[in-house]
Amino acid sequence: MIVVMNSEAGDEAIERVVAQVKELGLSPQVIRGTHQTVVAAIGEERPGLLEALEPMTGVEKVLPIMDPYKRASRELRAEPTIVKTRGLEIGGKSIAMIAGPCSVENLEQIVSIAIRLKALGASALRGGAFKPRTSPYSFQGHKLEGLKMLAAARDATGLAIVTEVMAPEHVPMVAEYADVLQIGARNMQNYQLLQAVGESGKPALLKRGMSSTMDEFLLAAEYILDRGNPNVILCERGIRTFEDHTRFTLPLTTVPYLKQKTHLPVIVDPSHGTGKASLVAAMSKASIAAGADGLILEVHEDPKKAMSDGSQTITPAAFEQIMTDCRRIAEAVDRAL
Amino acid sequence: MIVVMNSEAGDEAIERVVAQVKELGLSPQVIRGTHQTVVAAIGEERPGLLEALEPMTGVEKVLPIMDPYKRASRELRAEPTIVKTRGLEIGGKSIAMIAGPCSVENLEQIVSIAIRLKALGASALRGGAFKPRTSPYSFQGHKLEGLKMLAAARDATGLAIVTEVMAPEHVPMVAEYADVLQIGARNMQNYQLLQAVGESGKPALLKRGMSSTMDEFLLAAEYILDRGNPNVILCERGIRTFEDHTRFTLPLTTVPYLKQKTHLPVIVDPSHGTGKASLVAAMSKASIAAGADGLILEVHEDPKKAMSDGSQTITPAAFEQIMTDCRRIAEAVDRAL
Amino acid sequence: MIVVMNSEAGDEAIERVVAQVKELGLSPQVIRGTHQTVVAAIGEERPGLLEALEPMTGVEKVLPIMDPYKRASRELRAEPTIVKTRGLEIGGKSIAMIAGPCSVENLEQIVSIAIRLKALGASALRGGAFKPRTSPYSFQGHKLEGLKMLAAARDATGLAIVTEVMAPEHVPMVAEYADVLQIGARNMQNYQLLQAVGESGKPALLKRGMSSTMDEFLLAAEYILDRGNPNVILCERGIRTFEDHTRFTLPLTTVPYLKQKTHLPVIVDPSHGTGKASLVAAMSKASIAAGADGLILEVHEDPKKAMSDGSQTITPAAFEQIMTDCRRIAEAVDRAL
Amino acid sequence: MIVVMNSEAGDEAIERVVAQVKELGLSPQVIRGTHQTVVAAIGEERPGLLEALEPMTGVEKVLPIMDPYKRASRELRAEPTIVKTRGLEIGGKSIAMIAGPCSVENLEQIVSIAIRLKALGASALRGGAFKPRTSPYSFQGHKLEGLKMLAAARDATGLAIVTEVMAPEHVPMVAEYADVLQIGARNMQNYQLLQAVGESGKPALLKRGMSSTMDEFLLAAEYILDRGNPNVILCERGIRTFEDHTRFTLPLTTVPYLKQKTHLPVIVDPSHGTGKASLVAAMSKASIAAGADGLILEVHEDPKKAMSDGSQTITPAAFEQIMTDCRRIAEAVDRAL
Repeated sequence: MIVVMNSEAGDEAIERVVAQVKELGLSPQVIRGTHQTVVAAIGEERPGLLEALEPMTGVEKVLPIMDPYKRASRELRAEPTIVKTRGLEIGGKSIAMIAGPCSVENLEQIVSIAIRLKALGASALRGGAFKPRTSPYSFQGHKLEGLKMLAAARDATGLAIVTEVMAPEHVPMVAEYADVLQIGARNMQNYQLLQAVGESGKPALLKRGMSSTMDEFLLAAEYILDRGNPNVILCERGIRTFEDHTRFTLPLTTVPYLKQKTHLPVIVDPSHGTGKASLVAAMSKASIAAGADGLILEVHEDPKKAMSDGSQTITPAAFEQIMTDCRRIAEAVDRAL
Repeated sequence: MIVVMNSEAGDEAIERVVAQVKELGLSPQVIRGTHQTVVAAIGEERPGLLEALEPMTGVEKVLPIMDPYKRASRELRAEPTIVKTRGLEIGGKSIAMIAGPCSVENLEQIVSIAIRLKALGASALRGGAFKPRTSPYSFQGHKLEGLKMLAAARDATGLAIVTEVMAPEHVPMVAEYADVLQIGARNMQNYQLLQAVGESGKPALLKRGMSSTMDEFLLAAEYILDRGNPNVILCERGIRTFEDHTRFTLPLTTVPYLKQKTHLPVIVDPSHGTGKASLVAAMSKASIAAGADGLILEVHEDPKKAMSDGSQTITPAAFEQIMTDCRRIAEAVDRAL
Repeated sequence: MIVVMNSEAGDEAIERVVAQVKELGLSPQVIRGTHQTVVAAIGEERPGLLEALEPMTGVEKVLPIMDPYKRASRELRAEPTIVKTRGLEIGGKSIAMIAGPCSVENLEQIVSIAIRLKALGASALRGGAFKPRTSPYSFQGHKLEGLKMLAAARDATGLAIVTEVMAPEHVPMVAEYADVLQIGARNMQNYQLLQAVGESGKPALLKRGMSSTMDEFLLAAEYILDRGNPNVILCERGIRTFEDHTRFTLPLTTVPYLKQKTHLPVIVDPSHGTGKASLVAAMSKASIAAGADGLILEVHEDPKKAMSDGSQTITPAAFEQIMTDCRRIAEAVDRAL
Repeated sequence: MIVVMNSEAGDEAIERVVAQVKELGLSPQVIRGTHQTVVAAIGEERPGLLEALEPMTGVEKVLPIMDPYKRASRELRAEPTIVKTRGLEIGGKSIAMIAGPCSVENLEQIVSIAIRLKALGASALRGGAFKPRTSPYSFQGHKLEGLKMLAAARDATGLAIVTEVMAPEHVPMVAEYADVLQIGARNMQNYQLLQAVGESGKPALLKRGMSSTMDEFLLAAEYILDRGNPNVILCERGIRTFEDHTRFTLPLTTVPYLKQKTHLPVIVDPSHGTGKASLVAAMSKASIAAGADGLILEVHEDPKKAMSDGSQTITPAAFEQIMTDCRRIAEAVDRAL
């Protein structure tokens, strides 16, 4: 922690900061410049330090110098985490292609699309049984019935099931049917949910909040890891900015940045990230070229009849083309698909 | 709903859109321009319409024309909603001043600050028993014990208690002790929580999500209203933007905008909105001048010893000055404090 | 400057940083922690230091600790700068109300609105002769003819003229007619223009760029101050964020923040800041309550016939009401209007 | 143009809107719904229409339905524009790699790096003679001398020269030495500069402003095209958002979006877009996978000694690796490098 004193701070203020630094269990070192004095506080940078130092008299600002997450950090664990479950493997050489409809609509739909996707080479099936919707008047998902339909699709294809869980009390139920528990962007800082998923032991697919920083994203993962669950997949799905020609802004730089900072696998959701079916193919290729360990894509037999997110959903034919194109990109970065 | 066809869309595509509009229960009207054709779809704009029309062949974009919320709308109810509970009144002529520490730390602290704030004219006591924290290693609140301390502070002062609830399963417990259930910014789209608060019947203080649009904010309120709870207080607490000199960007234009759109009361949180104690007074005055129905402020006897959010917390002396200054502003806009 | 070494940086890397710090004319101080080493580089923080240190081997990040601007800083000059020209005074006790149409349309229009505004108590007349327009097909202003019309309006009323200058080569021409040279948001970092205005000796009204940080804003002012022109008025006019219910997001916290950091006067433009006439009155009051030294407002006899920016333009009747309301707010913050 | 009337608008208000639409030369069509009436205004959507309709009594909002740019639009010209100059070709099958230092520092430096880059396969040489700098105290470039050094580097290698021009009055001078005139992000809406570059007849490399929408970006290109210069290269270089782990947010979705909307070539600047040398390689590959027609990269023999932007500058060795890696990606998308 670096405590920058303002230019008018006298000796007394500096001494009080030094004393406070000691009281916090850190070791202070005073550096006097011609304009300003700086107090370096050396030691573990646990939460609360900044808040304890910043309001003090004479303090201009406090600059943390260490990353706030630990278990997610590459410094703790250099080799990559590979999440494996029922044939799905994310974080190794092979790139995972998770595909399926936004919502599970009915048994026939989910089983037939699963069979189709399996044939096209998908690695896992996604599909929403619990749907977080902006409006209370929108379709909220088939819930338990939807989970059962997903299980039937798994039985028919062997594909692992990725589905969202929205509340801590639903975790046991969803964990009974799903192979991977997805935490949606709106719930990235729903700490009770993170903890419940952490305790479930099931692999978690954690979507980045639409206005989250990287530190916040990795600290959300830390909540899951801290409960003893090492299988966290990070997913970039777009952030909210001033851009209005796409639904969100998809910042792919997240991918190489996270790969440097954490050992956890990183995937991309170009469907939500763009919000437009016509942009999904290009961003799928770009994600893999940027180093992503996988993609999660919305695919529906007839996007305009999808019960949610039709605008960004692609057809199986488009998915087939993406598989072909992404395979070429994967090879160009020494990966496989 | 206005469906804009692209310039190459032929008659067949237009006819399919017309048929789809009818099937959706809306009445279509085709407007042919020299460059483009537009299909107006007249009728109730329920969710799902956009998604059903946008992916169709030949459609360039779909423009909604009505507000998506209903119960929160001024069109449904012209007179302002006044939320009343245990001496606290928000939305009428008088401006509510909700004050207290970020976290409930111990019984002595919360009772003594409550007595002090009551003497200075506060309208209600805020204090966190459940604390949403970015890091799993930060202090998470005293939970049930904290609620009991808040109740003791209420007994000592008569001040209504405003405190945050973070998970649907905690709602009954928090509702037993609190007068107003606060939903934090990170939970603005935690729909299970919104519904549980809606069913509790207790007044709700709903904070704006840090990247929420006004439509999303009002639809989150709609989730509560839709469960039969009419007492929703909206709170602007700052949004996330590129600005780095404050913790968040506090967009006060929200206040007059919401007052035009909804009958619900609107308050402002200048503590989180700025993140800096030295900016709280000016933004408190500005909020009231902009038309806010109240403020919620973080006040602590010794901000640098606060267990959370010290940097943005003011002292009782600063609160006293804000009361004096805001009283003058309130009078200048024909309100009282 | 604080140079944070990464955890694997060895002694050799640290020594190279120490040597580089010395070569840059700063005095290094090494602080060894258990996890990381930090090198404090004490001395003048001129531009280029960060770039010279950050790419070095073993360096994780470099944290500047001083504000990059000098002449604009309150540390250099504690008393406020009051800009005075032809009856207009900004930065003192009195609040300046600069009003007028977006564009100068014709002689009759500008003279008659000037007379009307003068009667209503405006402090200066604004009006665009050179218009920066997003589209090349939009009305670009009457240029020299427009400047002459503004001069005629000044002759008729005695009001000081505030008008935009868009290119360095136009500065002499505009300076001949105007009392205050406005630099628009899109030109905030047009350095040739800033320098030319700095050399003109005329007071400058500098609008914040729509994605500028406070440091960039004050450094843009520094370009003008550095050319010997002390009369710079800073103007907050809204920033670009994800918000879509207003044209821009108007962050009034800028006002108290800048008043703490700089001696220069600070005004607000609620017309551009909101983009909606119905929100201008509330934000005018809020700006003054936040501590602004003045407002700049778009007023037109018939907004729907304005040649630009009609949506955010108010009528003279609305301006009259704003004068009345703002006078009350000004008194409530011990200012006058 | 779709004019949405508010729900209280009476017949009189609707008739006035109809009359105004006619007066503006458009043809009105009234669509009455149960809740709201909508007036469709069919015809050319020139600038100024929105402003003329939005302030009218009874109007809730006005929705444009056509793109505001014309010459840049794919609707006007379906085949791609290929910009060709001195061996550099952008927009065809081959991907252009523009590389060089941020600033031209001295003759020896620029000639030797040019020879090196030529040998590594670069398509053109970039280098700044005029440097836009946030601070007036930063190095501003060698100006005319810098241009002469660039010309010498061209003589030595045959590489086309790409360099920035910052003011309209410098255009003739810069055009004498450069092959492509770069317009920086801060000047994207410096309309005098755009027009001067348009009149120069030299190819223009237009960088996206850091908070520009796609419409604004294409309208800025339109300013150049409108002056008879068809050779405009669009460059995505990152936008300003809340993200703080990179210098800017690099939204690669811009690439496929622009390729759909315009016939102009689109390149990416991963150096500014990330601000970190360690992220440049991944984003270079991603850009090409997304469909970019080229890259512009900052390369310096010794990044830590660069006079500007050292943190994001790569070494020639890193550039060589990027060439190798990008060649593979280019082949995977049926392009060449």
